[in-house]
Amino acid sequence: MALVVQKYGGSSVADGEKIMNVARRIARTSQDGNRVVTVVSAMGDTTDELLELAYNVSDSPSSRELDVLLSTGEIVSSTLLAMALKSLGEQSISLTGAQAGIRTDNSYSRARIMNIDPKRIIKELEKGNIVIVAGFQGINDDMDTTTLGRGGSDTTAVALAISLKAEKCEIYTDVQGVYTADPRIVSQAVKLDEIGYEEMLEMSTYGAKVMHPRAVELGQIYGVPILVASSFMDKPGTLIHGGISMEGRNKVTGIAHDLNVAKITILGVPDKPGIAAAIFERLAGAGISVDTIVQNASTENITDLTFTIAKSDLGPAMEIVKPLAAEIGARDFVSDSGVGKVSIIGTGIQNTPGFAAKMFTALSRESINIMLISTSEIRITCIIKEDRVKDAIRALHKAFELEQA
Amino acid sequence: MALVVQKYGGSSVADGEKIMNVARRIARTSQDGNRVVTVVSAMGDTTDELLELAYNVSDSPSSRELDVLLSTGEIVSSTLLAMALKSLGEQSISLTGAQAGIRTDNSYSRARIMNIDPKRIIKELEKGNIVIVAGFQGINDDMDTTTLGRGGSDTTAVALAISLKAEKCEIYTDVQGVYTADPRIVSQAVKLDEIGYEEMLEMSTYGAKVMHPRAVELGQIYGVPILVASSFMDKPGTLIHGGISMEGRNKVTGIAHDLNVAKITILGVPDKPGIAAAIFERLAGAGISVDTIVQNASTENITDLTFTIAKSDLGPAMEIVKPLAAEIGARDFVSDSGVGKVSIIGTGIQNTPGFAAKMFTALSRESINIMLISTSEIRITCIIKEDRVKDAIRALHKAFELEQA
Repeated sequence: MALVVQKYGGSSVADGEKIMNVARRIARTSQDGNRVVTVVSAMGDTTDELLELAYNVSDSPSSRELDVLLSTGEIVSSTLLAMALKSLGEQSISLTGAQAGIRTDNSYSRARIMNIDPKRIIKELEKGNIVIVAGFQGINDDMDTTTLGRGGSDTTAVALAISLKAEKCEIYTDVQGVYTADPRIVSQAVKLDEIGYEEMLEMSTYGAKVMHPRAVELGQIYGVPILVASSFMDKPGTLIHGGISMEGRNKVTGIAHDLNVAKITILGVPDKPGIAAAIFERLAGAGISVDTIVQNASTENITDLTFTIAKSDLGPAMEIVKPLAAEIGARDFVSDSGVGKVSIIGTGIQNTPGFAAKMFTALSRESINIMLISTSEIRITCIIKEDRVKDAIRALHKAFELEQA
Repeated sequence: MALVVQKYGGSSVADGEKIMNVARRIARTSQDGNRVVTVVSAMGDTTDELLELAYNVSDSPSSRELDVLLSTGEIVSSTLLAMALKSLGEQSISLTGAQAGIRTDNSYSRARIMNIDPKRIIKELEKGNIVIVAGFQGINDDMDTTTLGRGGSDTTAVALAISLKAEKCEIYTDVQGVYTADPRIVSQAVKLDEIGYEEMLEMSTYGAKVMHPRAVELGQIYGVPILVASSFMDKPGTLIHGGISMEGRNKVTGIAHDLNVAKITILGVPDKPGIAAAIFERLAGAGISVDTIVQNASTENITDLTFTIAKSDLGPAMEIVKPLAAEIGARDFVSDSGVGKVSIIGTGIQNTPGFAAKMFTALSRESINIMLISTSEIRITCIIKEDRVKDAIRALHKAFELEQA
């Protein structure tokens, strides 16, 4: 009997009818001869509603209390799903993160899973139960509830699949899978049948938003195949795994983009050792992640330093850059919040010279100016004007013939 | 340093503003030099909303799942209250029923507290925390969540007060205390400063609805004084305790009433041993509680048997009485759902002959016909027509001069 771990997101269990729909899907998987463990997120907007309650009574709610509060959202949906399964005649039981044996560190609101003791889950499976686990949560050594932060329920599902040695982990969501580009922007975008872990990671980080990178990473480390598919349709979805066929390599898989980008340039920086370190240490100290960094070579030991950050970090970053620029003797500094990123992604891209040229040509043909370029093994990213990002995605999707993916 | 256990009901924590108000009261108790443990109910209509969710996915939700679901209501309010206290600069932590060490039996939806292990509560108090405990819940030996049923949070509070050897248990609610009669009916009704446990039990059962009898009983057994007071006003409330002064005895304390009453009379019952037993065993088997029972003595070994039940049980009760009446050879049977109860309550009432006479005279003066009478040590109850209950309460309140209580 195969063991399958499934995860359903908040939009898939947003109301009673949708919960019944999910219960029917789970029942079918069970009737097909599988043992099933299902991880479930909080219903629809529950988490936001709970956060609002918290901010009604406190400007900076205790993170320990916030975690207990938020964890109730997933407990509610897990009990309802177990009830729904029973009303369909299936044996089922819900377990909280604590009951499921999910032990985490003490970092409230962004806890990391330390280990899973699946004793209770196994016991319930052996009794013939479909086990519903409240996602997004665990307990620390003090037996206090913690939550896993963004992508928490995806992480719960993959971690349980690893711990239970499941055949596969299925992530059901409100999209049909991973596309060659955002289908809301490129109408010809095609759903991928499969994608490698690393490509998926680049797609996620660069805005595909189908599944949290953290859960993909976990799947990659332990080699668990992850299926991403729609909870509303019976379509095959996208399988994320490591064994991508030879034909799948050296080929652009998809176009990713990100509009939450701002750019800061510090002009006329003295080209001395330690200057860049001073800047980025100060930003890191304020919790600001710096993404692309470009330093323009210069004559006369003077350089211009440009880097990108999340648009939402621009205010705090400028607060740091302002005194710093004076301190290091820079000539001036400028910021631009009107930029965006567009990336082509595919295994082996960096080692195949033609891709970069093809990308730049496609963009130049649309008169899109490239401000910065950054690359990884499997990705080439251009920073361009924000209002040209959609045009860029469409042009690249066409240039790399992704509609035939 | 005195230890006080406080409990706030759902209407006292119905929204953020009310939670802040409760937090300020708790902070004041703490600043007055007390260690405080607070038990809290679910916010406003939360429990009803959760029940509705459950019945959306199942006609008969699993009681095990229902208990986990309902327990989240109190967890939510307890975390919010702890956050609110912190925002006032107080140290505070919320604990679930499980974390508070409340161990129950396995009767989901109406679990009984078996014992309390207050280790964690004591540890948190010693750290200087105000401890907020989610009411209405505990865990059984399988480490599964159970709920305590009606009056659950009151019971949690009294049980914690006993376990922690608290000075007193304060129940804060939306009324100012226990009144001589329902103040919505008798405008002259007076709040009592104190009341004995037994009198309070009779007041509760007979419709005073201030506090659940189960929690009062628990307080009585362990001799814990319970203060019932308003969470919205700074007024003294009513102290429920065992040491009522001599002057407090042999005096009517209050008038209670109940409109949820129906009466069934089986006419012409053969007066043979075992007949009454057959009737009441059959009703008990269907979960129907019978209250007052009166059998009219008769000549010719034929008797009329009358009893009262909750109005909501009338349908099922008649389903049982119908075939039974034929079986036992009764002449006929009639029911009346248009009846109500009115009671005078006071320690030592039964042993003081004047009270019954005064009660009957007061009712007869208002031309109120008495259908049935039942008495206990501290109570005399008359079953009368439902539409005369309010008149009866007012007449009795006046006759026993309770406006001067």
